[in-house]
Amino acid sequence: MSGADLAGGWRLACQTEVFGDVTVEVPEESRTRRQVIRKAPGIRAITPNPAIRPLQLQVQPPDHHFPMADWERLKTESAFMDQAISPVPDISVLRSLPAILRQNEGRVTMAVHVDGHCVGILKAPDIPLAGVALDIGTTSLAAHLCDLATGQVLATASAINPQVVFGEDVISRIAHASTGPEATDQLHRSIIDAVNDLLEALWDQSGISPEATVDMVCVGNPCMHHLFLGLDPSGLGLAPFVPVVSQSVSVYARDLGLHLAAGASIHWLPLVSGFVGADTIGALLATTDEWNGKTVLMVDVGTNGEIVLAHENRLRCASCATGPALEGATLRHGMRAAAGAIERVWIDPETLTVRYRVIGDIPECPVPPVGICGSGIIDAVAAMLKAGVIGPNGRLKRDLNTPRMLVSGNHLAFVLVPAEESATGRPIVIDQEDIRAVQMAKGAIHAAGRLLMEAADVKTVDKVLLCGAFGSVIDPVAATLIGLVPETAPERIVATGNAAGDGARLALLDRTRRVEAARLALRLEYLELTLHPRFQREFAMAMFFPHKETMPSEKETR
Amino acid sequence: MSGADLAGGWRLACQTEVFGDVTVEVPEESRTRRQVIRKAPGIRAITPNPAIRPLQLQVQPPDHHFPMADWERLKTESAFMDQAISPVPDISVLRSLPAILRQNEGRVTMAVHVDGHCVGILKAPDIPLAGVALDIGTTSLAAHLCDLATGQVLATASAINPQVVFGEDVISRIAHASTGPEATDQLHRSIIDAVNDLLEALWDQSGISPEATVDMVCVGNPCMHHLFLGLDPSGLGLAPFVPVVSQSVSVYARDLGLHLAAGASIHWLPLVSGFVGADTIGALLATTDEWNGKTVLMVDVGTNGEIVLAHENRLRCASCATGPALEGATLRHGMRAAAGAIERVWIDPETLTVRYRVIGDIPECPVPPVGICGSGIIDAVAAMLKAGVIGPNGRLKRDLNTPRMLVSGNHLAFVLVPAEESATGRPIVIDQEDIRAVQMAKGAIHAAGRLLMEAADVKTVDKVLLCGAFGSVIDPVAATLIGLVPETAPERIVATGNAAGDGARLALLDRTRRVEAARLALRLEYLELTLHPRFQREFAMAMFFPHKETMPSEKETR
Repeated sequence: MSGADLAGGWRLACQTEVFGDVTVEVPEESRTRRQVIRKAPGIRAITPNPAIRPLQLQVQPPDHHFPMADWERLKTESAFMDQAISPVPDISVLRSLPAILRQNEGRVTMAVHVDGHCVGILKAPDIPLAGVALDIGTTSLAAHLCDLATGQVLATASAINPQVVFGEDVISRIAHASTGPEATDQLHRSIIDAVNDLLEALWDQSGISPEATVDMVCVGNPCMHHLFLGLDPSGLGLAPFVPVVSQSVSVYARDLGLHLAAGASIHWLPLVSGFVGADTIGALLATTDEWNGKTVLMVDVGTNGEIVLAHENRLRCASCATGPALEGATLRHGMRAAAGAIERVWIDPETLTVRYRVIGDIPECPVPPVGICGSGIIDAVAAMLKAGVIGPNGRLKRDLNTPRMLVSGNHLAFVLVPAEESATGRPIVIDQEDIRAVQMAKGAIHAAGRLLMEAADVKTVDKVLLCGAFGSVIDPVAATLIGLVPETAPERIVATGNAAGDGARLALLDRTRRVEAARLALRLEYLELTLHPRFQREFAMAMFFPHKETMPSEKETR
Repeated sequence: MSGADLAGGWRLACQTEVFGDVTVEVPEESRTRRQVIRKAPGIRAITPNPAIRPLQLQVQPPDHHFPMADWERLKTESAFMDQAISPVPDISVLRSLPAILRQNEGRVTMAVHVDGHCVGILKAPDIPLAGVALDIGTTSLAAHLCDLATGQVLATASAINPQVVFGEDVISRIAHASTGPEATDQLHRSIIDAVNDLLEALWDQSGISPEATVDMVCVGNPCMHHLFLGLDPSGLGLAPFVPVVSQSVSVYARDLGLHLAAGASIHWLPLVSGFVGADTIGALLATTDEWNGKTVLMVDVGTNGEIVLAHENRLRCASCATGPALEGATLRHGMRAAAGAIERVWIDPETLTVRYRVIGDIPECPVPPVGICGSGIIDAVAAMLKAGVIGPNGRLKRDLNTPRMLVSGNHLAFVLVPAEESATGRPIVIDQEDIRAVQMAKGAIHAAGRLLMEAADVKTVDKVLLCGAFGSVIDPVAATLIGLVPETAPERIVATGNAAGDGARLALLDRTRRVEAARLALRLEYLELTLHPRFQREFAMAMFFPHKETMPSEKETR
């Protein structure tokens, strides 16, 4: 909080003692809004081949001449179906079986895993079985409830990851968890509670029951994976940064306190390293056709950046800390991608007039701008670069003759939205620190991509896939302008949507994809950038923005 | 409570209101004593072939050039052992793994099931893995902690089944459980709590840790099975008397709230019918050499009686209610087999002088008699029959000229111990109702045995095996005298000890015995006596005691 803020009467609520009745004004940009999470399911044709199938059974009542146990009568009926493996009952199934058999005169649906494990008994026939594809991001969660037989998405729900109160990035969460098992458990419980809330929302939307929700596949980065499963993540925060487990993990929903069908399991796609997680595996699964047999750079831009280079049947990957700036957090006027966020920016190079697009702003119901989200800041920086408001080194130009450049001693800021146009009544600006944060983030991703290409002896790539909640909304031209990736032709940059979540959905609906995921995890060769002798130098160089003079020489180095 | 008792100043505590300070005298026979449960492990040579084996591993620390996850480094080491199946981690193992690996510089013991499931990680090498064989009787529980590698019994603990407060026999417990899920859960929790207490006792005795206790095999009757697993037992109490499940059941200890190693499972041997349970399967497992290829009647005498007839490669079985009389309960001066219980009785046919043996009574420390236990009542009835105190119809002879026969109107009682010799200061007697209870019990067992022999077209058996906590302490001569089984030659009656518990121990130590148990369960042919047209008649006839006149004719019918 600046001196000017204090002078203007602003106070931090957390630092203020209350002595009597007060009226608290929560400034517009601090108000909680429903975030627009760009984790909509991608449209991909999937032929379902689920792990759990329904068997419609008519179980005979017991009689004196046939006094078989409830389960054995059920099993006898299932033997007449195409069930090759003799089913094995979950204890929860046995507990509910007598009542369910009697309630519906023996007409039941048995949900059985291909490995024979009977995960549930439903008291009515012809109930569609459903599963959940869950994408756990550091910042946001997205869940899709899918019909396991048709592949159809029945409902979608998303939420902010409640762990954000323990820190915006994975490092702060690992640091908190490392204070002891109670802290790890606290983070674990918070995510489980949030997922249970998401499940409620999915059931409300779809009318599907918890008992019919018999499978779940999760993706997320290694820290989210560990905290979801209740594993100690401290190894992820200390060199040599190893996870507790990297292979795929299946665990009973009840062992996590998740309210699925009582016998249901949760399947986590495998991790690759302490920093490259199941989200990357999911994204690779969902984009196989895009990279298989080609030279492709896949970039997942989140609070952490993961970069994969597919080339000549090898998959190399690296990860780098990008900070939360590219998701709109920690910027001076940054905000999440919610209503009121500036998501696109155009600047006239002659007049320096700014145009912008605000999320949720439609002619019938205008929404004034509140702050800048991730795609907005990249767009804004690209536009400022193109208009000469900043130079290739990222410095704001002090001597521009425009009232949009605020100068206060050493502090420079460029006004995107004047006070009179904003929802807050104060100007929305981008200052030097905001630009530095973008430079750090894009520099790390750019350097990681270059070093992977160098390791593979690749000068140029066929395609760059931008994925992740944030990556998929970046404008390819803006990405090219700021040099986010070592590939300048915007037509080769493709946004893939939420590929990680799509991968979870694929693995949910087609169990062979889980095997494929395990193979991918073993194929991925991890390049530890912190050990690379030239990473720091490449990173420092990559913080510069491309400009006319350097662009040709940049191209020469490739 | 009789009028004489009331006149003598005796009051039921449960019927007495307290208005001021009182001194409560708990009569000797009501005091809780450590029951002498005859469930000592039988001595049988077992070559262990356990389901869970220890792998001693030295796990390498992670380094920058080998940044493998904790679990994957462990798995890599296990691949160098004789472990054919790649281990799959239990979630609890993953949760404890990082700390355990670091605490002991990577020297750990992995407990792994032959199916690959890793049930525990121990932080020291060379810790013996242990398992528990648990015999859950309607009245008593007995647990043996065994070294899975050597087969050695490391500790033994027993306790009263706490469910006795809900009724002495299975029918009353089923009736209580049938009042609703809360009642079932109450019975379930009470047995689980008692087993957790037994486990504590086993660990205290042996120094084995809970983490090293990685397997458990249970036997018990169908009602005990259902209540232990939390299954609704109401089907066991209603015709056609079907269990919820009869095949063997494996369930995670944590799903039952049992405090074994976090990833350990409990294995229940299979049931045969709603009345013939895993205890019978266990007894058959333990006595295979005794009955295989022979004509053998196996009788398990408990609150419920189970009878198996092995003949010409077929196994036929039946069950009957015997009531708790043969275990010493519900008799006028009955008590459990604890210190002070009369366990053997001799009566001089001339003088009617009674000699008896009391449990715990040794010359250095005399224990006066308190009551009569199960083996005592059979012995006493046999002795009374031999001495002519009762006739073949079981009636006490009113006209005996002895002060031992108390006559009070229609009420007759025979004094085993005069008031001045007893611990209670009151005579210990056997009255007509006690004898009726014994007749009912032995009549049911006798009739069941006869009908099984009739079904198999068998006139005589090679051997009678008496098993169960109580059956194995019956004196074969006394059993013959009262006609407990349709086989009169005492030399053919063999006590097998606690065969059910021995079967659990066999299945614990040798996993191939679990497969054998499943085969046995499928082989057993259950004869439902309540449906047999002649059971009531046979039962009524079998209530008579054998006497000189009937014995030859009894033999002729066979």
